[in-house]
Amino acid sequence: MRAVLDKRQPDLTVLLERVHKPHNFSAILRSCDAVGVLEAYAIPAKHGIPDLDEPEGLSLQGKTYNETSGSAAKWVGLHLHEDTVSAFTHLKARGFQVLAAHFSERAVDYRVADYTRPTCILLGTEKWGVSPEAAELSDGHIQIPMMGMVQSLNVSVAAAVILFEAQRQRIQAGFYEQPRLSPEHYEAVLRSWVARHERGRG
Amino acid sequence: MRAVLDKRQPDLTVLLERVHKPHNFSAILRSCDAVGVLEAYAIPAKHGIPDLDEPEGLSLQGKTYNETSGSAAKWVGLHLHEDTVSAFTHLKARGFQVLAAHFSERAVDYRVADYTRPTCILLGTEKWGVSPEAAELSDGHIQIPMMGMVQSLNVSVAAAVILFEAQRQRIQAGFYEQPRLSPEHYEAVLRSWVARHERGRG
Repeated sequence: MRAVLDKRQPDLTVLLERVHKPHNFSAILRSCDAVGVLEAYAIPAKHGIPDLDEPEGLSLQGKTYNETSGSAAKWVGLHLHEDTVSAFTHLKARGFQVLAAHFSERAVDYRVADYTRPTCILLGTEKWGVSPEAAELSDGHIQIPMMGMVQSLNVSVAAAVILFEAQRQRIQAGFYEQPRLSPEHYEAVLRSWVARHERGRG
Repeated sequence: MRAVLDKRQPDLTVLLERVHKPHNFSAILRSCDAVGVLEAYAIPAKHGIPDLDEPEGLSLQGKTYNETSGSAAKWVGLHLHEDTVSAFTHLKARGFQVLAAHFSERAVDYRVADYTRPTCILLGTEKWGVSPEAAELSDGHIQIPMMGMVQSLNVSVAAAVILFEAQRQRIQAGFYEQPRLSPEHYEAVLRSWVARHERGRG
């Protein structure tokens, strides 16, 4: 656990705005885990957060997200916000730039953005993308160069492509070479992971 | 259609070895389309190729793959091979290096591989990955740096991360700046696309 925590990036995150398909939600958290995202943010879709114990099924009632296990969800903290404005307020207060994966006139190639800054990548729903409200509030829009007939990517694919570009930049910047959490934060997360792991085995 | 065909890469492809979940299969073809893959290869899973008209459902009997529409599948040619050996024989005869997305002692960071060479990226099943036989036959193994607790990525995510690295290298090498198909091949593909498009509207 320490080897993983040593690489966790407290200043790289995602905000999932009403992503509702369990396999997408689950795949995004797996990618987050793989690039060292410490905590992710989500604005739940109408039907709530998918149950990741049943990645191909419907979400079940009566289970809270933190009880899911056996997946990356266990190791990426998830913060829920009721709406877009409250999520943005929180992220801005923490000093994050929010970059929306969103085609627009002001969108730049995702490889041009600087992910060594404290960064939140915003991803919208499968069908409609980022909401106009969230696009407006974002600090920048990024787009993935599309050379084909279809003008969109699967949301978990788009998330991964951008997250691994962030990983590439952060490897180059030496961000994975030593712990990036303060000693107190590090120990607190470690304790919660140990407790979660013990519960998972119990 | 010409604008897209101008960017198609006849020497970049994927081989999907028994990938069976429709949403993964579909997401991979969307990524292929987005980076300009002209033709993809697949070794069908036991239950056949997923029906991409029903990306969340089960595959239906009695439909052939080419009849699916409304998706990237329409614009990325798909070649099926019965088994691993016949797929490899075909790809080697065409001069492709086959790079398996596969953790092993000889695996290198996927960013180190040279995707400007004629390249086929091999992806295995969701559960078991690349078969030992295919791993053995491959020219190289590539892996995506994993910094988290979970040691694997969703297969469509892994495919996309590698394909967009290939796109990055090919953008730098100027591979999208002018048509890469011979004039005869270009016109033949264009005719088939027009016909497919007409059928799709009919």
